[in-house]
Amino acid sequence: MIHIRPAILCGGAGERLWPLSRKDRPKPFHRLLSDRTLFEDTLLRCAGQGEGISFSAPLIIAGEAIETPVRAGLKSVGITAADMAFEPMGRNTAPAAAIAALLAQKQDGPEALVLLVPSDHHIAPVSKFRETIAAAAPLATEGKIVVFGIPPTRPETGYGYIRQGAPLGEGYTVAAFEEKPDEVTAKAYLESGDRLWNAGLFLFRADILLAELARFEPEILSAVKESLGTDGRIDAAAFSLSPSLPLDIAVMERTAHAAVVPTRFVWSDVGNWPSLADALEADIDGNIFTGDIEAIDCKNSYLRGEGVTLTALGVDDLIVVATGDAVFVAPRSRAHDVKKILAELKAKGPPSLL
Amino acid sequence: MIHIRPAILCGGAGERLWPLSRKDRPKPFHRLLSDRTLFEDTLLRCAGQGEGISFSAPLIIAGEAIETPVRAGLKSVGITAADMAFEPMGRNTAPAAAIAALLAQKQDGPEALVLLVPSDHHIAPVSKFRETIAAAAPLATEGKIVVFGIPPTRPETGYGYIRQGAPLGEGYTVAAFEEKPDEVTAKAYLESGDRLWNAGLFLFRADILLAELARFEPEILSAVKESLGTDGRIDAAAFSLSPSLPLDIAVMERTAHAAVVPTRFVWSDVGNWPSLADALEADIDGNIFTGDIEAIDCKNSYLRGEGVTLTALGVDDLIVVATGDAVFVAPRSRAHDVKKILAELKAKGPPSLL
Repeated sequence: MIHIRPAILCGGAGERLWPLSRKDRPKPFHRLLSDRTLFEDTLLRCAGQGEGISFSAPLIIAGEAIETPVRAGLKSVGITAADMAFEPMGRNTAPAAAIAALLAQKQDGPEALVLLVPSDHHIAPVSKFRETIAAAAPLATEGKIVVFGIPPTRPETGYGYIRQGAPLGEGYTVAAFEEKPDEVTAKAYLESGDRLWNAGLFLFRADILLAELARFEPEILSAVKESLGTDGRIDAAAFSLSPSLPLDIAVMERTAHAAVVPTRFVWSDVGNWPSLADALEADIDGNIFTGDIEAIDCKNSYLRGEGVTLTALGVDDLIVVATGDAVFVAPRSRAHDVKKILAELKAKGPPSLL
Repeated sequence: MIHIRPAILCGGAGERLWPLSRKDRPKPFHRLLSDRTLFEDTLLRCAGQGEGISFSAPLIIAGEAIETPVRAGLKSVGITAADMAFEPMGRNTAPAAAIAALLAQKQDGPEALVLLVPSDHHIAPVSKFRETIAAAAPLATEGKIVVFGIPPTRPETGYGYIRQGAPLGEGYTVAAFEEKPDEVTAKAYLESGDRLWNAGLFLFRADILLAELARFEPEILSAVKESLGTDGRIDAAAFSLSPSLPLDIAVMERTAHAAVVPTRFVWSDVGNWPSLADALEADIDGNIFTGDIEAIDCKNSYLRGEGVTLTALGVDDLIVVATGDAVFVAPRSRAHDVKKILAELKAKGPPSLL
């Protein structure tokens, strides 16, 4: 049985899920796909044991602004033993990975095995998730920094890609990290068969990760070490000195220890309203209704009301998301552009809406 | 100078303007067309003097449930001297006309001239309104019960019609009151040139109206007399014994004293969202925005937010009305059917939404 310390990152703002997702209750803390929030699903997925691995109590790394929903989520799934660190400002994933590695070492010793996971993705089923982690564990134990790669199912231009190199254990060496492609390139990537989506999911030994950070980004490591209090609080002045970099750039693109393991589970980043609607099961008229909905003669529409009664008559192909203080309406083909609305509101709306 | 006592009826529920119009704040108490509510506009239209007539302080006849918005409306236009009667239950317009006649007699004597006006219509300009009333005043003074008739502008099937008879002063005798017609009949009415819409606007001498009520519907008159307290309160047990009838049926269709005077003003009953949208001035893209609206790439749409920020992206030909607890979305061609939604909510929704 391999013991793994999950480190759950609660960073995703989820702006394309406005008006539901807000600064003080971002995407991970909403019941988007089921009766549980993405954060709660992530906690449960990274708990217990099976498929040869055993998850220890989670580390939670989150912004200060969302301490309340973080604690509520832990409570709602019955997790009482979690080590939490609340960042006073966002510094991207490299400093968060450093925090995770340092906290894990305190609990499990220098070679603590850390699984770094975003909390705003949909992943299923749990057994396939564990299987994937178990397949990568020997590589990580040997000293590889494993990034998981999602086998592409469409020519997606919104994600970074990983090009597989030579076979290595249950995975591959990393031939290259590739930026978000244009459409032609994305199609070529899909056909190549050797590309995987980079979904920001990592498995590594704490000592290896920290050594590579010390080598490539010593300022990140020193700022994080300096800022970390004993109680999970992070000193703002010290932490603010850390460069703001994703782990991919700070370490993965430079290290000789990178490996990639393809995932075996169903994955979605639930990135925007149309993709969420696509992921949910529609009724015979093509509708998906969430909340208090009263609809007559509607088709192919996603209607979601939170704290309000949302009613519609004779609409087709529409997405409507209504909360007590904001409503968003768009055709299904346009709803991914909600950030344009948010940009206007940032310029002139009340901050409570953001 | 002819003195006229306006009696303002606050009865219209305005269900086709849901979710804005509610039981405790119905259609007359919303700012639909301007910065003033329809009730406030009605008060101001029936105040002051000009065109040979002088309006006395108004009588207000309203349901008990809306006493608060009635008092707020009076205050907001600066009317302090109003005689109010709050009905404990709706009994349609014949009992309300009796209340108006009895209250007017107390103030102005037996032959008090009463103008019975709904408070949920749009009428403009005020000068033409006064002109119309002034034209009808000699007929009413002579003992006619005058109903005003709106010259039709379309083959409307939603209103009752009045067929003009022989010329009589500035108006006509009434040849017949005609029910809401089907489409073919409505077209024939429009072409006939002798039909007018019945909009529920009356001018009469109090003694004449009460005499006709005593003759045709003595139970209404006795119930109203019995129920009327000195302080404007109406005894529920006594009032409940009144038959529930519109003035048209109780008196107008039976009396020998009916006369009709065509109106000279612009009139709209602002009956539903599409007709309200049609009455408002659109911007260059055909849009009408009321409230906190953030819209990008929208066309021909009426977006109205009250107490919420309403946002839309790329919608066309849509009506969206959003409040803090309910939202209604429909294509412009369907929005008149909002009562279908309301019927569902009456069956299962929280009463606060009605």
